[in-house]
Formats: sequence, C-alpha cells, structure tokens
Amino acid sequence: MFTGLSAFPLTPVTDRGVDEAAFAGLVERLATAPVDSITALGSTGSYPYLDRAERARVARLAVRHAGDVPVLVGIGALRTREVLALAEDAQEAGAAGVLLAPVSYQALTDEEVFGLYAEVTAALSVPLVVYDNPGTTHVTFTDELHARIAALPGVASVKIPGVAEPAARVSRLHGLLPDPVTIGVAGDPLAAAGILAGCRAWYSVLAGTVPEAAAAIARPAFAGDAAAATAESDRLAPLWELFGRCGSLRVVSAIAEELGLVAHPNLPRPVRGLPPAERAEVTRLVAELDLRR
Amino acid sequence: MFTGLSAFPLTPVTDRGVDEAAFAGLVERLATAPVDSITALGSTGSYPYLDRAERARVARLAVRHAGDVPVLVGIGALRTREVLALAEDAQEAGAAGVLLAPVSYQALTDEEVFGLYAEVTAALSVPLVVYDNPGTTHVTFTDELHARIAALPGVASVKIPGVAEPAARVSRLHGLLPDPVTIGVAGDPLAAAGILAGCRAWYSVLAGTVPEAAAAIARPAFAGDAAAATAESDRLAPLWELFGRCGSLRVVSAIAEELGLVAHPNLPRPVRGLPPAERAEVTRLVAELDLRR
Repeated sequence: MFTGLSAFPLTPVTDRGVDEAAFAGLVERLATAPVDSITALGSTGSYPYLDRAERARVARLAVRHAGDVPVLVGIGALRTREVLALAEDAQEAGAAGVLLAPVSYQALTDEEVFGLYAEVTAALSVPLVVYDNPGTTHVTFTDELHARIAALPGVASVKIPGVAEPAARVSRLHGLLPDPVTIGVAGDPLAAAGILAGCRAWYSVLAGTVPEAAAAIARPAFAGDAAAATAESDRLAPLWELFGRCGSLRVVSAIAEELGLVAHPNLPRPVRGLPPAERAEVTRLVAELDLRR
Repeated sequence: MFTGLSAFPLTPVTDRGVDEAAFAGLVERLATAPVDSITALGSTGSYPYLDRAERARVARLAVRHAGDVPVLVGIGALRTREVLALAEDAQEAGAAGVLLAPVSYQALTDEEVFGLYAEVTAALSVPLVVYDNPGTTHVTFTDELHARIAALPGVASVKIPGVAEPAARVSRLHGLLPDPVTIGVAGDPLAAAGILAGCRAWYSVLAGTVPEAAAAIARPAFAGDAAAATAESDRLAPLWELFGRCGSLRVVSAIAEELGLVAHPNLPRPVRGLPPAERAEVTRLVAELDLRR
C-alpha cells in the first residue's frame, strides 16, 4: 500500500460546499485506473481549506467509491487537537492509512514537529505517511528529523519533495530510516528521477486527475526502465513548466474542468482557477499531450 | 484608533480550551495601561489555532474587558468563506475594526490576495487593517499590491513588517497609499526605527504583555525624540535577540508566565513553550530589564 503510484484527487468545492457527486466521480475513475492507492484530502484535495465535517464526509465518500483500492486520508491541521480529531474521523471512515503534514503558522522547531508526530502516532491504529511538503507547510525536514520520526510506531512511509539530484538524498535516507518505511517522491516533474533513484512510491498530483498519463511514467520507472520513464516524463515537460509557473493544483483543476470531471470554479477561495491565458494553454496541452486517455 | 500603540495580547489556551479568566486579566491590564488600542486574536493571540466559537468568545471577552480602549479583532483564516464568517462574529462582538492577514497554504498570487481583501471589505461595516506578516503567511506584499488594497473601501491602516532601513519603504508607501490610511510597523525590535521613519502606528507583540516597556519606546518615538526612543529600544536588545532566536510568541508567553499572568503551558500545540535554558533566560531578563513594571 505504501509503494507504487498513489493518486491524489481534487476535492472540488463551490460556495455551497464540497461537490460530492464530482468528487465521487473522480474517485471512481481512479478505482478503475492503474493506481496502487488513492490519497484523499492531500494538498491537491484542498484538505486545510475544509472544515471537520466536510473532511469526514469526503473521507467516507473516498472509501465508498474506491472499490478495492486502499484509501489514505490527509489529517493535517494547524493544531494538534484538530489533527487528533481528524485522525479519529479518518479511521472511522475506513482509511487504510493517514497522511500528515506539519501545517504551520508560527514557524515550528524540530522538537515541535517531532512532538506532533509522536502525539499523533501514539493515538493511531492505522499506518501513517509523513508528508514533507516545504512549499506549503514551510517546515524543512532534515534527514535526522525524518529518521527520528520514522522510528515512531506506525510510520509506514515518508513522502519527500522532488529534488533535482535525488540519488544522494534517497540513499542517505535509506541508510537512516527503519527498513520497512518506504520513501515516496512527490513533485510530479521530478518523480521519474526520484523513482529511478530508489523511491518506492510516487505520491502524485497528476495521477489524481489523469492517472493513465502518470502510470505511463510510473510503470517503466518502477521497472527500472530509465529510458522509457524519462522519455515519458520529458514528453510532459510543457505541463511541468505550467505546474512550476502556476502551481500544480490550479493546473490539474483546469485539466479536470477540460475533461468535464468538475465544474468551474472548483477551488476554495481565495485560491482561484488559472487566468484566461493559462487556462487556454491547458486546453491546448490536454489535446497535444493526449491527456484525455 | 489606527495610530499610536496597539497591544496584542496572548490568548492563553489549555487542552480544555481558552483560559478565559487569564485572557480577561490580560485585557484588563491593557485597558489601564498607556496603549491606544488592543488587538485581540493577532498572531500573538494565536488566532489561526482557534475554532470559530472560541474566536467569537475571545472577541466578546476582549470588548467587555477593554473599557474605553478600542478593540481590533483578527479575522484571518485560510478560506475566504471562513474569513467572512469571522468578520461577522467580530462585528457582532463589538470590534471597532478588524485585522486581516492573507493566511496561505497554497501560495497565493497577487490577484488572489487582492480578491480576498476585495471580497472581505465589501462585506464589512468596520474599518480594516491589512496585516502584512510574511513570516507567518508567506505572502510578500509589493508596494503596488499594498496600494491597490489600500484603495478598497474601509481600509484604514497597513501593518508592515519591520525592516532594517524603513525610511525608503515608508516614504514610498506614503506616496502610494490614500491619505487617511496609516502605516503601522510590526516587528518590535525594529519598531522604534519604523516610527521614527514615519509609521504612525506600532502593532506590538511586547505591548500585549508588558505595555509599560513598549510605551517607554513608543512615547518618545511618536514625539520624534529619536535619541530617547532608540536608547530605550537598545536597552531591550537582549530581549530582541531572544525574539529572533525563539520567536516572539514563545518569549512573551514565558514573560507572561513569569509575571504570573498565565499558567503553563498556554500555547496551542504543536507550538510549545521555550526549552528550559531559554526559559531561564526569560526569568533573568524579566528581572534585569525591569519588565515587572
């Protein structure tokens, strides 16, 4: 469950709340796609923008519509009290595991980040994925902090951000982390390189909306076919460039609109969809890169 | 109301919720101190860690215990929907104004930040302070973005972070902002310099817990007595150094403990109080810097 391709679906929202029908449709699409797990309420699923009742409902919908595919659920929140409540809700919903990012407002010390994971893992009865996402949480994990946290009971995987030269970091982490803890790469543009460097999981934004396009990279990458994986990743370079320029969330939101999977708007304000020029680029890329598969 | 010294009290919390008696005590202390306004639920008041009911309650307590001193209330939240609800609650509580930081998880574009303020000011019937705090929100305001937002109806003041050479920025902003909009400085260690450079307000962490010490800087600074203001600020250099090293919130939390104003612990986990060595430094500094006044 903590290896292979994990798909992060959007949670489409309107002013009236979560668009539950569209969310269920996104999850059903993933249940029949070649993905190894579904992670609901990741950053792509806008978890920190939703309230507790919405998140509990989304977790239940994800489990109900995922078929046999295991569902992980994001439980991150600013306050430990809230994280513990969300962990209960996720487990009651039937999550096979949870994903926890150290969301911050006041900058956190390493001791505070460790304390959060210690407190939460002590209360959990399902495995946990450590969600290292400095772009949104503004927490930087040292390898040593990863090692301390990964030694806590129930930690199953560590999701690290993509880096341009992943081999050194992945090899150092493999040396520091307990053996059963997998290392997974995030940051789709650098995923092929991460997998080829030894990451055993890919926590993927793209797979949540266009799973075939992500699987076309993941399959050869996990099989060690560097040439094929790199070629398929390079083919999507215009998409990766747009991810970098506008944020992957806004781009996959526009792709999902283009494919008719979600209505517009579908992001939680103040976050908004792409401006018109970039939105037109997405229309063009969906056709040129054959993302309707 | 949007000039002079504004004091930001802590919101002491325990696992059972807000310590309302201690909070009321902190506000009463400020009501009789030489401050020009009280800002409840600023960053020092841990606003993003509290739920809506707690924040409504804290806003009402602040107004009830502030006597004749006007109360501003922080209404920041990740999602616009939530900000609008908090704005209603703050106004119902009797806030004389509100303070809004563009809290972020997904990095926000300038258009999104502007959109947030446009939507919120359109719904408000009290004045708003723009809260520019890149250390916690990770939003960087250009001067041009400040100018666009300050032109929205109801914007009364802009709270800018302290900078080492404030004169150029304050003068540029004065040229760009509508005339009645005041510029206020945050970042206590650089407050004297900011006021002397033309900031008409000081949004102060320190004043929320030890108002006399802050007023001893503010009084000469607002009167243009650079020598006295700078000397008084320099006297607190060891405190500013600790602010920089450990975060001002943790330091004023420890000062408030030291003065018997709040119990321990009083911060919302995962945020924790100072480690023992730094806690001992606070004990020493409270005595050496005569912070019991």
